[in-house]
Amino acid sequence: MSDLPSPPALKRPPQHVPMSQFAQQDGELLIGGQPLTRLAARVGQTPFYAYDRQLLKARVAQLRAALPASVKLHYAMKANPMPAVVAWMAGLVDGIDVASAGELKVALDAGADPAEVSFAGPGKRDIELAQAVAAGVLINVESARELAPLAAASARLGLPARVAVRVNPDFELKGSGMRMGGGPKQFGVDAEAVPELLREIGRLGLAFEGFHLFAGSQNLRAESICEAQQKSYELALSLAAHAPAPVKFLNLGGGFGIPYFPGEGLLDLAPIAANLLQLADRAARELPHASLVIELGRYLVGEAGVYVTRVVDRKLSRGQVYLVTDGGLNHHLSASGNFGQVLRKNYPVSLVKAKGPQGGPTEQATVVGPLCTPLDLLADRMELPVAAEGDLVVIFQSGAYGASASPAGFLSHPNCVEVLV
Amino acid sequence: MSDLPSPPALKRPPQHVPMSQFAQQDGELLIGGQPLTRLAARVGQTPFYAYDRQLLKARVAQLRAALPASVKLHYAMKANPMPAVVAWMAGLVDGIDVASAGELKVALDAGADPAEVSFAGPGKRDIELAQAVAAGVLINVESARELAPLAAASARLGLPARVAVRVNPDFELKGSGMRMGGGPKQFGVDAEAVPELLREIGRLGLAFEGFHLFAGSQNLRAESICEAQQKSYELALSLAAHAPAPVKFLNLGGGFGIPYFPGEGLLDLAPIAANLLQLADRAARELPHASLVIELGRYLVGEAGVYVTRVVDRKLSRGQVYLVTDGGLNHHLSASGNFGQVLRKNYPVSLVKAKGPQGGPTEQATVVGPLCTPLDLLADRMELPVAAEGDLVVIFQSGAYGASASPAGFLSHPNCVEVLV
Repeated sequence: MSDLPSPPALKRPPQHVPMSQFAQQDGELLIGGQPLTRLAARVGQTPFYAYDRQLLKARVAQLRAALPASVKLHYAMKANPMPAVVAWMAGLVDGIDVASAGELKVALDAGADPAEVSFAGPGKRDIELAQAVAAGVLINVESARELAPLAAASARLGLPARVAVRVNPDFELKGSGMRMGGGPKQFGVDAEAVPELLREIGRLGLAFEGFHLFAGSQNLRAESICEAQQKSYELALSLAAHAPAPVKFLNLGGGFGIPYFPGEGLLDLAPIAANLLQLADRAARELPHASLVIELGRYLVGEAGVYVTRVVDRKLSRGQVYLVTDGGLNHHLSASGNFGQVLRKNYPVSLVKAKGPQGGPTEQATVVGPLCTPLDLLADRMELPVAAEGDLVVIFQSGAYGASASPAGFLSHPNCVEVLV
Repeated sequence: MSDLPSPPALKRPPQHVPMSQFAQQDGELLIGGQPLTRLAARVGQTPFYAYDRQLLKARVAQLRAALPASVKLHYAMKANPMPAVVAWMAGLVDGIDVASAGELKVALDAGADPAEVSFAGPGKRDIELAQAVAAGVLINVESARELAPLAAASARLGLPARVAVRVNPDFELKGSGMRMGGGPKQFGVDAEAVPELLREIGRLGLAFEGFHLFAGSQNLRAESICEAQQKSYELALSLAAHAPAPVKFLNLGGGFGIPYFPGEGLLDLAPIAANLLQLADRAARELPHASLVIELGRYLVGEAGVYVTRVVDRKLSRGQVYLVTDGGLNHHLSASGNFGQVLRKNYPVSLVKAKGPQGGPTEQATVVGPLCTPLDLLADRMELPVAAEGDLVVIFQSGAYGASASPAGFLSHPNCVEVLV
């Protein structure tokens, strides 16, 4: 008998979820059905973002199939405000959510029906509130301060402002990438102050339509999302008793996450669908005039997009391979780890060769952009096919919070281009 | 006799260095000699950045007075590429350092002498290298890859490329905000590979002019900067033995920091000046054709600038005061903590009242921007005068890496304006 301990099990390090949403042809990635090298030639420059139209459509279809038919699906365009994307999404979803007057303009230009557009955001300026009243969109009131300018605009335009109340709940979404409810917050009106606000909305003659609750974002745990939806529904139901008009619109937020980093998995929609079915049944009885709304940004567009940049230099420094590319954090701040991340992790990345067969032997390489700062890091020591100048580096999961959330002017490099294919 | 321990000494929490660079009038901040409320009226909108021309001049004068007269002072315009600032700085310093062809254009438009412009950065594209040769500026070679396109451009234009070698040293700057030397790096050529690169420069007939070493940035410890300068000088001296021509230009980098956060102090220039004096003496003997160059960005412009945004809403949520302003991380990513910071800390911030006397009773307030994300935080629970709608929030130390390093398009809010006063 031996007392020797058994050797520790060899643990495979956490991996990225396979990026199987994109087909391949002869080992080359297809975006919108086109080989990436051909798409790059069509775009005429790197770097660029490409969003796949059919993947956007498929994602909406997948949600429609999973969720109860009575639940409305909204697109939060802050995730990707490219006008062509907004126009495409407007044709697929039930409504568009905007976060500024600038986004409102893009949504209306894209043909979104103002009746199905809602406007949320702290610090709305008086002119923005008036623009929203004139447009006839639903305004999610974030603060008691907004009521007076809304009433003034309503009187001036002879058009009662359509309003919902964004509630700062007294709970928060667990396991969320960003917590946006519970405790003191800049978002929404504290739940306990909502009854008085509802009375004031009635007094001012504004057109009350419902509630908006948003407890977090980028959550990969279905049970946390279900719990937040349950609590949001209960809170809205109790507040509805104080409302000056029936609730027509109950936005339960979103928070559906996508996997970015090694070890993260896909969100399981089934429990969320079951939960929403149960809530929709309750709503049919308890809030008979109300539509339940799920508002999604990242979940609708994030996985359909890639950022593509070209290798300018393959450089060896003290044994480490650097692929220096023509774009970096100036176009894709999130992938560099400098946007809300505490510990930087790699996005999923692949390499597409400019010529010759794809694949081949691999090596450990670090991908950096062209900026004079060590922050400009796109992939830290990843195993990639041995690259040459001219090859393309593809950053997946880049359809949301990419181009528009990056410091494009930093170091005055050429702008990147966005295409919808 | 008592065995009770003595009470712990009351420790004052770390404070920001006073922002005494700006004068005041009746308690109101003066920028470029103008009361801030009047300046805001002149600009015609918030948010805006304002840079104080006389402070820029005074900072250069302070450095000239402290440093040996033979040391050249360069401005790294990546810190603030506003054309008016670059033009003003071009008239004050000895040269401009650019990091892209885009910056090169701004520098030349601003009237900078191409003889005193240098171009550094990884991943320079062939077209950028050719532009730099045609412009007649000094090119800091970051990689052996750059030599062939430089030689080709030189032949095509009949103009030998002016080159210096950016060296990746085998040491790094201690206590630096960003480490940019030592170990494997994307920047520069590994010190041990430089002799071969110098031979190749000679073979290709390029116009060799010197070395560029840059071991870090945002360093507040003078002794670390001195040590890096000493080591950089020694390294350059040993490499000069392999050079195809005398060293005319020895860029020892910068790294001079400014205080951003509570507890940080001003950099002590005296030991750096003494150190440079000693190196200048040595250089006069050992590298008789060489000018020593110090390249500074943030240190020249950072303290001369403020970001100004207006309070749209003063909001109380569960006992906490929020000042919601019309600008945030979309214009000033660094102040939000989302640009290279691991633990978010507050920039120095003050409040300027739109009307009535300045100052008055204070309260603890959190300043947030208008974006729908909890990342949009400009000041976390700071003691500020009790604010009202319309008051101005001033973020100090905002002259560098502000407007150009921020995601201006995020959420499609109005752009901010920059003024030089």
